[in-house]
Amino acid sequence: MAHSKESVLEEIKNTVLKSVRPTQAEKEKLETVRKGIMEDIVRIAQEQNQCDIIPLSVGSAERNTWLHGNHDIDIFISYPEDLSFEDFHQRSRALLTEMAKTGDSWEDRHSEHPYIHIQKEGFEVDLVPCFRVKSGAEIKSAVDRTPFHCAFIKENIRHLENDVLILKQFMKGCGVYGSEVRTGGFSGYLTEILTIYYGGFEGVLKSAAGWKYGTIVDLAAHQTLEHEHPLVVVDPTDPKRNVAAALSLTKFSLFIDRARSFLKNPSLDYFTPKEYPPMNAAEFEKTMKARETKLIGLSFKTPQKAEDTLYPQLFRMEKSLEELLIRNEFPILHTYSWSEEEKSIILMEFFETRLPSLQKRVGPPVWNEKNAGAFCEKYKNNPDTFSFSIENERYVAEIHRKHKTAEDLIRDMLFKEIALGRHVRESMKNGYEILQEKEIKEIKSESFWKFMNEKLTFQIKP
Amino acid sequence: MAHSKESVLEEIKNTVLKSVRPTQAEKEKLETVRKGIMEDIVRIAQEQNQCDIIPLSVGSAERNTWLHGNHDIDIFISYPEDLSFEDFHQRSRALLTEMAKTGDSWEDRHSEHPYIHIQKEGFEVDLVPCFRVKSGAEIKSAVDRTPFHCAFIKENIRHLENDVLILKQFMKGCGVYGSEVRTGGFSGYLTEILTIYYGGFEGVLKSAAGWKYGTIVDLAAHQTLEHEHPLVVVDPTDPKRNVAAALSLTKFSLFIDRARSFLKNPSLDYFTPKEYPPMNAAEFEKTMKARETKLIGLSFKTPQKAEDTLYPQLFRMEKSLEELLIRNEFPILHTYSWSEEEKSIILMEFFETRLPSLQKRVGPPVWNEKNAGAFCEKYKNNPDTFSFSIENERYVAEIHRKHKTAEDLIRDMLFKEIALGRHVRESMKNGYEILQEKEIKEIKSESFWKFMNEKLTFQIKP
Repeated sequence: MAHSKESVLEEIKNTVLKSVRPTQAEKEKLETVRKGIMEDIVRIAQEQNQCDIIPLSVGSAERNTWLHGNHDIDIFISYPEDLSFEDFHQRSRALLTEMAKTGDSWEDRHSEHPYIHIQKEGFEVDLVPCFRVKSGAEIKSAVDRTPFHCAFIKENIRHLENDVLILKQFMKGCGVYGSEVRTGGFSGYLTEILTIYYGGFEGVLKSAAGWKYGTIVDLAAHQTLEHEHPLVVVDPTDPKRNVAAALSLTKFSLFIDRARSFLKNPSLDYFTPKEYPPMNAAEFEKTMKARETKLIGLSFKTPQKAEDTLYPQLFRMEKSLEELLIRNEFPILHTYSWSEEEKSIILMEFFETRLPSLQKRVGPPVWNEKNAGAFCEKYKNNPDTFSFSIENERYVAEIHRKHKTAEDLIRDMLFKEIALGRHVRESMKNGYEILQEKEIKEIKSESFWKFMNEKLTFQIKP
Repeated sequence: MAHSKESVLEEIKNTVLKSVRPTQAEKEKLETVRKGIMEDIVRIAQEQNQCDIIPLSVGSAERNTWLHGNHDIDIFISYPEDLSFEDFHQRSRALLTEMAKTGDSWEDRHSEHPYIHIQKEGFEVDLVPCFRVKSGAEIKSAVDRTPFHCAFIKENIRHLENDVLILKQFMKGCGVYGSEVRTGGFSGYLTEILTIYYGGFEGVLKSAAGWKYGTIVDLAAHQTLEHEHPLVVVDPTDPKRNVAAALSLTKFSLFIDRARSFLKNPSLDYFTPKEYPPMNAAEFEKTMKARETKLIGLSFKTPQKAEDTLYPQLFRMEKSLEELLIRNEFPILHTYSWSEEEKSIILMEFFETRLPSLQKRVGPPVWNEKNAGAFCEKYKNNPDTFSFSIENERYVAEIHRKHKTAEDLIRDMLFKEIALGRHVRESMKNGYEILQEKEIKEIKSESFWKFMNEKLTFQIKP
């Protein structure tokens, strides 16, 4: 006898839950480590006469929405709101310096905001100082909202923790989970709010199947600001903030597709991220031969910066390169950004990387007299033009192309017309390479060849 | 001492006028021939008992706006309005058959409407039967308006004949004179109305310099119909008709440019049509080598039809070919239609005539559920796709291209997707060729190589 779709769905959810819910032993271990860290913070604070700080456990562990195998602990250390930034930095530095010694290893993650990351007994621990502000809408530093987020979810989750776990795993399986810039997906907090708003895992999926660009979710019904984003989920702790601001249009759309497809034909496959084994040289050659396209790469030393600092610069450069190539008529199919510790590469795939000498410049309409005058001034009676004519209402000059290959164009325009972020520009100034297909083939990085496999063979499945 | 711009202009006009105004001998000759034809018509009509016809002289000769060297005589033979079409055809055929014998040679130009062309003593004479209707707005056949046009101009020209002559020659010099489909320029009647409306040659040019798409000239202030044309000149004899309906956007725009440029710097150069000597094989090779583009031609036997029947079919096919090529991603620069008695060729110039195997199909946005479903149905889980993904809000399938060369595409789609007019289709059915550059080089037609020279080297000048 065939199972009903509902019972299939229940079975899938139960199976997923079993694999993603942390075990009792995991929970106890985490609880022990976390308690130890909290006690260390209080002890060191007392030794340093910082008795006005309060350690706050704020991560998904705290709200029972953490996934099995995820060993993250987030602890915030809150300071009085009226503390000056100078005192805040000085006092938090003293405290974090001592806390660093309690870990098995540690790392300074200080960027604009001070914080450290320690590893302790197999756990990845973030220790983040913040201000104890009155509400999520009146923050002094960007991280001050987090404790409010944590409190809000704890108060409102009402036994939907398992639905959050299942939804997170579903999103992981589809490649849309994670709000770091590189991924551009759904954050944990966003997943929790959606689960609460739509009443559970299926509720979220059923609604998502009908989402359109600009869908608004306002749980606290207090939105005070319009946002130009694919999805607007108003922060229940701050009416001006869109919790889904980091969600890219592609990941938003992919989630809609995955939700719709899963509801039509539920299966466990949706919960397993697709792995792409590294492509070998023979596979790469075969693929490129079948595609008959041209690949080039712009390669440079990776700036030693946090991913969330680096990736916006990579993506901006990628977009800017694509625009330059389109402006100059190169028939480009794709651009991709790949980065690992040593090297970063912007990859560009073309129909053709060489264009003929003749370039057609389409000018203004004749009746736009001012612009028409400037265009004619430039090209009329110019001995270097192939032709100068009118097509429909516009002047058209056929001139000699300055850059006949994509490589020439990029080399000449890189520092003139490409939007290069500060760190990428510094790296580029120290050198870069333009790789043709045969040089790309020589790259010896497993992560690169996994990345290429994914980009060249991606199939939305099931 | 420098001449003022006004005096330069006067000098130019006088010089032009001297060369374009018919001589006294020319006028007398024309008058004699015309009179003879009118008398022949009346005589033959009497012999045939067709005493109710009236011969009407209606051409530019009649209104003193004919150019020196132009030996056209247009004579209409008007029949009573209430005559049946059957009687009209029968009676006019009898009359024209006899009239044909009075010429040195003759030709039946009958298409939908009966008329003949005779050559007589060096003159090209059109003899056109029409109905004697009450006004230009109540015509029974397409030609019935002409006598009203002629009468209107004669009544309203008021000594501007010389301005019409100068304007016609200016338009000839710029390549915008002639309302046949092949040219898409200004007709004689249109030139006359503009001269009357703007008060002379300079008046037309000064206004034209400021024309925009959709400019309306309504001399009789009686427009009753909107027209979607670059220039709308309401027929003073028919409020519904746009006299400038045949003027192409390109020729309209070119005239604006030429008017503006001439007024800035008047010179005699504007009154001489540019001649393009035939390009020889070496020049052609050198030009194509410099352009680095690819040319192909679609060649077929020219249907034996009047130019104004043939050219709309050629232009429509040319446009349709261009759209097919663009739809299939071929980077096309230009298309041209060339035709002479034996052969017609549609020429296409490309950046590249071969595309890679990979073709990117961009589908609907995910939230357009119905279309998205159809697109996914077609390409998702299709083993023949390179990839299936989402970019921004749209599904994207990378598939194998069916037609990798422009030639393959055209051969396969010619009778399926190209708009072929009846006569062109018939000719194509009997065979066509796709010419590559080396075959184009073999073409042995002087008119073809003049045409190529013009298309490949056109420069608006001065």
